[in-house]
Amino acid sequence: MKFLLLIAHGSRRQGANDEIRQLGERVASLDANDYDGVVTAFLELAEPDIQQGIAKCVELGAQSIVAMPYFLASGNHVIKDIPGEIACAMAGKPPVDIEISQYLGSSDLMASLVLDCSRQIG
Amino acid sequence: MKFLLLIAHGSRRQGANDEIRQLGERVASLDANDYDGVVTAFLELAEPDIQQGIAKCVELGAQSIVAMPYFLASGNHVIKDIPGEIACAMAGKPPVDIEISQYLGSSDLMASLVLDCSRQIG
Repeated sequence: MKFLLLIAHGSRRQGANDEIRQLGERVASLDANDYDGVVTAFLELAEPDIQQGIAKCVELGAQSIVAMPYFLASGNHVIKDIPGEIACAMAGKPPVDIEISQYLGSSDLMASLVLDCSRQIG
Repeated sequence: MKFLLLIAHGSRRQGANDEIRQLGERVASLDANDYDGVVTAFLELAEPDIQQGIAKCVELGAQSIVAMPYFLASGNHVIKDIPGEIACAMAGKPPVDIEISQYLGSSDLMASLVLDCSRQIG
């Protein structure tokens, strides 16, 4: 079973964290979704954190996980912090493989999304 | 002439700001782009700031501007800071109309983008 772990920054504002959780649910409900489950996690300021998110995937039966950084820029969070958290989790030898995908901002489709989004006024 | 003003947060890391500038160029080069120009601006930490970005659009001939917040969550930056900067610019009665579009994270297409992006490993 393959799971998607959607990793966002996390916010002090619960509404912003709930937006991420709802996004995870929307990804899971897409017809094109071929993951067996989608779990959201937060680098900081909200729960589950990355370790808890990985544990949740394992509890739900994941044998492999794709960890996707939901970040716009390749700053320290994407380059160091998220890989560091995942390396930390792997050091505990969990019964699961974890790969890190591209971060959101690097997507080839971002320019089209920006153009589409800019047309939605108000 | 209608311009897109793509507003990002801005980073101390020049590479992250350059990513935004390159994204603006990619949006401008899309076949589906119907703006007469695309200008990038930053809320803080980088230039042009929002006031400078609006001035640049006007210099380039813009009669109307769509300001798009390139932000993932509807935090204070999206709810207060960007509208405040634009209200401040409009108080100077520039010869241009400005509308604020949806912010990136609210796009209906985001779930599909997440799914696609998660498939790009390494």
